[in-house]
Amino acid sequence: MTTRKVNIAEKLAGFTEQWAPRRIARVNDYEIKAARIEGEFIWHTHDHTDELFLVVDGTLTIRLRDGDVVLGPGEMYIVPRGVEHCPAAREEAQILLFEPAGTANTGAEGGDRTREPVDA
Amino acid sequence: MTTRKVNIAEKLAGFTEQWAPRRIARVNDYEIKAARIEGEFIWHTHDHTDELFLVVDGTLTIRLRDGDVVLGPGEMYIVPRGVEHCPAAREEAQILLFEPAGTANTGAEGGDRTREPVDA
Repeated sequence: MTTRKVNIAEKLAGFTEQWAPRRIARVNDYEIKAARIEGEFIWHTHDHTDELFLVVDGTLTIRLRDGDVVLGPGEMYIVPRGVEHCPAAREEAQILLFEPAGTANTGAEGGDRTREPVDA
Repeated sequence: MTTRKVNIAEKLAGFTEQWAPRRIARVNDYEIKAARIEGEFIWHTHDHTDELFLVVDGTLTIRLRDGDVVLGPGEMYIVPRGVEHCPAAREEAQILLFEPAGTANTGAEGGDRTREPVDA
């Protein structure tokens, strides 16, 4: 695998589309994706994998059926596999995701919010 | 898996030992570890896994046999499996590592710099 230095802020500055994660790095068969998000996503579940959210900028709310988790910059949260969740952000937030390659942003839910990740 | 919000800076503030990675989160069978490093580590190789370095604070130099990679805060680099490397930091740096659970800090090299990661 070819590898080079990755500047997270530069990667996030390189696109504007919201709710469309970009691949910025790969570790074995896992990917780190960068995303800009604003507003409310959809409730969904990943049946086969945990999903890590790390906030770079702004505030991310992860809605869970038993309450919200609110994350600021430098905070992270792992949604366990099988746990329904809905990411949301009142104003635009910049986040990283860490999960196996091939994990769909809409999980088992699918639908028109689904985006194939592309390289940043 | 029980999960809760993880504040990266708080985790790093919770210990002082250098070159002794602390587990701060788990995603499936991968772990995120936080480490404080200063000075030069040892040359080593991970034969079976890539290793991600992400700098939180300070400057990390990853020595490779064909040159150094120098990383500042918000920058990351993936050392591919099988590639010999030696992390170093002139002044203390705070970093995150992402790799499969069970990855030894000294890789295939072993020796007295080996540390079993403990939870932060």
